Amino acid sequence: MARSPFASQRVRDTRVSEYAVRRLSLYHRILRVMERGGQDVVSSDDLAREGRTNAAQVRKDLSYFGTFGKRGRGYDVTVLRSRIEEILGLDKRWRVVIVGAGRLGSALASYADFGRLGFDIVALVDSDGSKVGQERGGVTVSSVADLTAIVGRDTVDLGIIATPAPEAQRVVDQLVAAGIKGVLNFAPVKVKVPDGIGLRNVDISIELEGLTFDITSAGAAAGPGLES
Amino acid sequence: MARSPFASQRVRDTRVSEYAVRRLSLYHRILRVMERGGQDVVSSDDLAREGRTNAAQVRKDLSYFGTFGKRGRGYDVTVLRSRIEEILGLDKRWRVVIVGAGRLGSALASYADFGRLGFDIVALVDSDGSKVGQERGGVTVSSVADLTAIVGRDTVDLGIIATPAPEAQRVVDQLVAAGIKGVLNFAPVKVKVPDGIGLRNVDISIELEGLTFDITSAGAAAGPGLES
Repeated sequence: MARSPFASQRVRDTRVSEYAVRRLSLYHRILRVMERGGQDVVSSDDLAREGRTNAAQVRKDLSYFGTFGKRGRGYDVTVLRSRIEEILGLDKRWRVVIVGAGRLGSALASYADFGRLGFDIVALVDSDGSKVGQERGGVTVSSVADLTAIVGRDTVDLGIIATPAPEAQRVVDQLVAAGIKGVLNFAPVKVKVPDGIGLRNVDISIELEGLTFDITSAGAAAGPGLES
Repeated sequence: MARSPFASQRVRDTRVSEYAVRRLSLYHRILRVMERGGQDVVSSDDLAREGRTNAAQVRKDLSYFGTFGKRGRGYDVTVLRSRIEEILGLDKRWRVVIVGAGRLGSALASYADFGRLGFDIVALVDSDGSKVGQERGGVTVSSVADLTAIVGRDTVDLGIIATPAPEAQRVVDQLVAAGIKGVLNFAPVKVKVPDGIGLRNVDISIELEGLTFDITSAGAAAGPGLES
């Protein structure tokens, strides 16, 4: 149970938490809607509602990225939308390969919103030869044997892992060796990537646990809340 | 742009943020692993690492729920695991219906970890008569026409929406009328539930945006971070 006095300081100094990034994504969504609707200015209260947090947290999140509202007036919608887009890396398009053309991989390949949000599914690969050549959501299934060549040829940025758990790490290693920049893992297993490579795990049961918390405990909460 | 002086206060007083709940889920996972491995005590630094936050945030999260560690010693693993289980509502089993037996709904029905985590998929329904009677991950597909009867008969607690967007709200309304307690929505559309009914939306693009943030901005972050 040795505790480094620097442990929490290190986290504080070098990382923006995934919770803050998640809020930025939510702010970005509402800003896009407001911009399309012709709204010029947004208050931190309105952003808070959408980001499911409070106005103080919104101001803290945005000031960290050097974006400041005007007191009593709020934030310029277009400026803020554009700034958050840069921060999230959404001012460019991302080229994505999905590994695994089972039910989940096929559902992901068919997810129409990816394109609208800046993610182009350029390939879908599977180890099952009988699936190769079939189409899923407009993408033709390729062989996983060609994965390295595909990543190089199509300059793929991101890999989505939708394989069974036992295959996930091997595929991640292959993607990393081929030059991928980040991995979104849906396989129900922990995978590892080297430093400098992005990694997010999607864990559906965490969402379910949020729901059961709401049903079980939210009504019982009292006193100062954990608002951030 | 009218601002209520009470708006953020209201959030603060009555709600625990979904970000805090998400951290509790992560703490719970590592506590289970530690308990199985025979570990008695855990430090806030170790919990912070797993919860992807810092030790100060861990202490804040846990003290809010009336759980306190001992200075220089840490938290009792079994006591804390059990306390978080209660808070998250994981000390009981939850009965779940999945609506939509397409690729995503079928993938979810086949997700083996649900059972281990306390969620029993008791039914899977679809509006496509040709799917009725087929099996997905050990669950037989029923007709959506029987949804109300199924919720009542099987005392279903939670509904997972894996329908196309245009059908989602109608199905949610039907589930709510049938007495469901909460909804996990995978359809790429906002749905509404009455007060008192739980609702979580799963948004895969938010996970992708976390990844593109990491790749784009994380290396550039400096100064005091947004650690919570």
